[in-house]
Amino acid sequence: MNMQVNENVVIVKNKAFLAKAEAFRKPLLHRDIAAKSIVEVVADEQAIHGWKVRDVAPISELGRVLLGQGDSVILDFGEHVVGFPSLALVPVGSPPDAPLYLKFTFGEMPVEVAEPFTNYDGWLSKSWLQEEYYHIDILPRDLTLTRRYSFRYLKIDVIDSSPKYKVALQHVKIKTVSSADRAMLKVAPDTSDFFQALDRVSVKTLADCMQDVFEDGPKRDRRLWLGDLYLQAQTNYETFDNRDLVKRCLYLFAGLTDADGRVAANLFIEPEPIPDDTYLVDYALYFATTLHDYYEATRDLETLTELWPVALNQIRFAQQLLDANYLAVEQPYWWAFVDWNEALTKQASVQGLLIFTLKQAISLAEILDSDEKSWLSDLLEKVTFAAKKYLWDPSQKLFVSGPEKQIAWHSQIWMVMAGVLPDEEARDLLRRTAEYSPEIGLTTPFAYHFLVAAWLKVGDKEAAKQVLVGYWGDMLHQGADTFWELFKPDDLSFSPYGSHLINSYCHAWSCTPAYFIRKYHL
Amino acid sequence: MNMQVNENVVIVKNKAFLAKAEAFRKPLLHRDIAAKSIVEVVADEQAIHGWKVRDVAPISELGRVLLGQGDSVILDFGEHVVGFPSLALVPVGSPPDAPLYLKFTFGEMPVEVAEPFTNYDGWLSKSWLQEEYYHIDILPRDLTLTRRYSFRYLKIDVIDSSPKYKVALQHVKIKTVSSADRAMLKVAPDTSDFFQALDRVSVKTLADCMQDVFEDGPKRDRRLWLGDLYLQAQTNYETFDNRDLVKRCLYLFAGLTDADGRVAANLFIEPEPIPDDTYLVDYALYFATTLHDYYEATRDLETLTELWPVALNQIRFAQQLLDANYLAVEQPYWWAFVDWNEALTKQASVQGLLIFTLKQAISLAEILDSDEKSWLSDLLEKVTFAAKKYLWDPSQKLFVSGPEKQIAWHSQIWMVMAGVLPDEEARDLLRRTAEYSPEIGLTTPFAYHFLVAAWLKVGDKEAAKQVLVGYWGDMLHQGADTFWELFKPDDLSFSPYGSHLINSYCHAWSCTPAYFIRKYHL
Repeated sequence: MNMQVNENVVIVKNKAFLAKAEAFRKPLLHRDIAAKSIVEVVADEQAIHGWKVRDVAPISELGRVLLGQGDSVILDFGEHVVGFPSLALVPVGSPPDAPLYLKFTFGEMPVEVAEPFTNYDGWLSKSWLQEEYYHIDILPRDLTLTRRYSFRYLKIDVIDSSPKYKVALQHVKIKTVSSADRAMLKVAPDTSDFFQALDRVSVKTLADCMQDVFEDGPKRDRRLWLGDLYLQAQTNYETFDNRDLVKRCLYLFAGLTDADGRVAANLFIEPEPIPDDTYLVDYALYFATTLHDYYEATRDLETLTELWPVALNQIRFAQQLLDANYLAVEQPYWWAFVDWNEALTKQASVQGLLIFTLKQAISLAEILDSDEKSWLSDLLEKVTFAAKKYLWDPSQKLFVSGPEKQIAWHSQIWMVMAGVLPDEEARDLLRRTAEYSPEIGLTTPFAYHFLVAAWLKVGDKEAAKQVLVGYWGDMLHQGADTFWELFKPDDLSFSPYGSHLINSYCHAWSCTPAYFIRKYHL
Repeated sequence: MNMQVNENVVIVKNKAFLAKAEAFRKPLLHRDIAAKSIVEVVADEQAIHGWKVRDVAPISELGRVLLGQGDSVILDFGEHVVGFPSLALVPVGSPPDAPLYLKFTFGEMPVEVAEPFTNYDGWLSKSWLQEEYYHIDILPRDLTLTRRYSFRYLKIDVIDSSPKYKVALQHVKIKTVSSADRAMLKVAPDTSDFFQALDRVSVKTLADCMQDVFEDGPKRDRRLWLGDLYLQAQTNYETFDNRDLVKRCLYLFAGLTDADGRVAANLFIEPEPIPDDTYLVDYALYFATTLHDYYEATRDLETLTELWPVALNQIRFAQQLLDANYLAVEQPYWWAFVDWNEALTKQASVQGLLIFTLKQAISLAEILDSDEKSWLSDLLEKVTFAAKKYLWDPSQKLFVSGPEKQIAWHSQIWMVMAGVLPDEEARDLLRRTAEYSPEIGLTTPFAYHFLVAAWLKVGDKEAAKQVLVGYWGDMLHQGADTFWELFKPDDLSFSPYGSHLINSYCHAWSCTPAYFIRKYHL
């Protein structure tokens, strides 16, 4: 990934927008969840990453486990949790004559408490690996960890106590944090047990990512990304329906554009909202699509009116990346995300997304009775024409992308989403692509989301369900409590970051089965 | 060292004594001390432990040092400090897109910031090694470390930031803690520059060990040990003269005896005063000698009267270890400290210390007009007779110890301290011993203290000064800011704990040059 450090980015703060975002910030909700059992992690070739968890004893036995130098214990909370862990540390033996030195390791997945982080050699910061060292000078001690962690498994290593005493652990629990109000959760869909299970894990994934903002993942990046927000918001309307949180996020992005009016791909929230110096054209367009969906869900005309100019600026940003033929131009830097796939040429996907966005924008222009409708319509006509003329390969009957005329799954999906072809032809295109099985395939739940959306757009519910069953259902079979950031069924250790230890296993962009199941009655 | 875990020890809490100890607890005093320079540690065969410190830049340059993954910096505070460090962490570059992961390593000596603690293989707990890991989620950050550290050198390692940002450090300082009031420090002695330097380092050592109690060492064990207290109190009367702190410590020991009235060798202070389950007869006797000195310094008859029964109980404890001939009997467990020397047979030393203590106790009995004087005098006569009859080797003209009739420096010193021989013969004994140079020699400043005291007792100031110059002066030459727990001039890496990394380099029992220089006008 070609990270850009744009030190010269000028940020335009819209204080009124930021004040509105702040006004919609609500106190987080809490639950106390106790650790459920004492477990061990054992090697198992059949299990994902080669590790599975086995119960050793019920948590009621924990107080009897005495830990001295070099001892460790792994606890299973029984579900994925996000929050602030606490525990009581009780010395046993002589009075503690040396500090207690502990290491905490948090795992969303068994592998994280099975393989030492010292083996990590990925290119994302080691600081994301959830481990913590604590010296405890005075015992007994009620210890509440000061950072937020995202995990199901907690490993506690006693690096050292002393020959004269050991330590027992009691009351290991977590105070969870979330802005998802379970009391507001809409009733579960009347569907198969399997789809209900998919729905439950989706809802859990979303809830654990709903914090002060819609985070992409509570383990990593703990940040407000527009791509994630777009999908989270869709799922949110069908589940917790926390409209204020969507509104807050839209105002945050709108309040922190650059001098050209572009919204950042993501925002940092603390110590104050700060836009990352990364500008991705697809993520910028998702501002407009998220605003569109927000209005559809809420009919909040005031917000639509206020944020409409910001949405238009994102279309202008995309417009600037078009060539004289109104074709999106592949850029030599990290200009669009689309998917984690270094081989992917993103031209056709962005072209399709622009068309998709323009159609939504035009519908909003009509609602607003906006003068902008005419240039939007004009632009839509031109980019649609360009897509058909330059990106359609009539011999292969597939869309191509970039100077090498690459055939990628993504390009077909986005042209379907764009409605460039009539529905029946579009359905044929998807089927043809599935048969063709392009070498450039989908690697993330984010990309798979749009595949499901595309099947539904062309009216093929069965195909959509097959993707849910085959892809998300596979994660479920592998033991997912929450849906993962990355999942390649043919490469279970896939990570775009060089190590699956750093992957996020509760990731917002993977939460959309609940959206599909509920909205389309699957 | 044969640590005893006596789980069946019954503690008798004297609440009135403990309440008095609590009443004399005073808020600690603080100073803000900034880091003084940026340094590096370089290998040097001539330097102690093979490492010396070299200035790299003044501290004013620190803000320009940008630290990213794998970078580190070492700061020199210019003096030994004890307290709570703080610093400001300022990100430089793009907005921090990953937590900052830092490691802090604190060194009283260069070796502690030069050699990785992972090499440590001593038998004391690793938890004493002063290192700390911190994840910083939000930057910039004013960070105050929550534990107390004892150090001169601070190494800060950036384990990771991210490729998009680095970090600068600002305002690195420490809020020191001590119960030594510098405003109360008695005027420095009128003596040579060299003895003034010895005095300064002694006073600094004492001050950094004066906390909520007289600690043995602020790095390790951070605890109230009776052997250290005895020497600290002596030095304290000549310097800060914090009488309340001595009184507090005496009442703490007296308030927490066992069922036989024995005081513990040391106390833990937090979360509440707790006696360690270690009972050493010499340390118990130091309760009586410390009470004796306290009365001499303060004429506080009320305290003497109250604690007198406790002092007597320590003599009874020693009495129980005598055989039918009134000779101290070597025990098969850790029964007396005397010195860190596994080969040392402690019988003669304890016999000498008992005589020494009995003489002080009889003088106190006279002040109190106590009925106990008669049995004390009777006992004194018997143990003195036994010492002369069974421990004096007339052919070698040296005292011997234990069944193997070991000749140790300690035995001669303690018999001199006991006044078993007339002063002139005692002086000859010390000179003879120096010439004989026993294989069983002194290994700690604690033991060397009594050598100096013995020379002074027999009136040989020059010999006493030679020990100060040759032993403590040698530490000074090696760069000591504060005097060390362990120092063997012929084995600079000596540690009774298996690694010099864990030694304490600011240790109470080493602070007595100031006592000798001031009290005896050396």
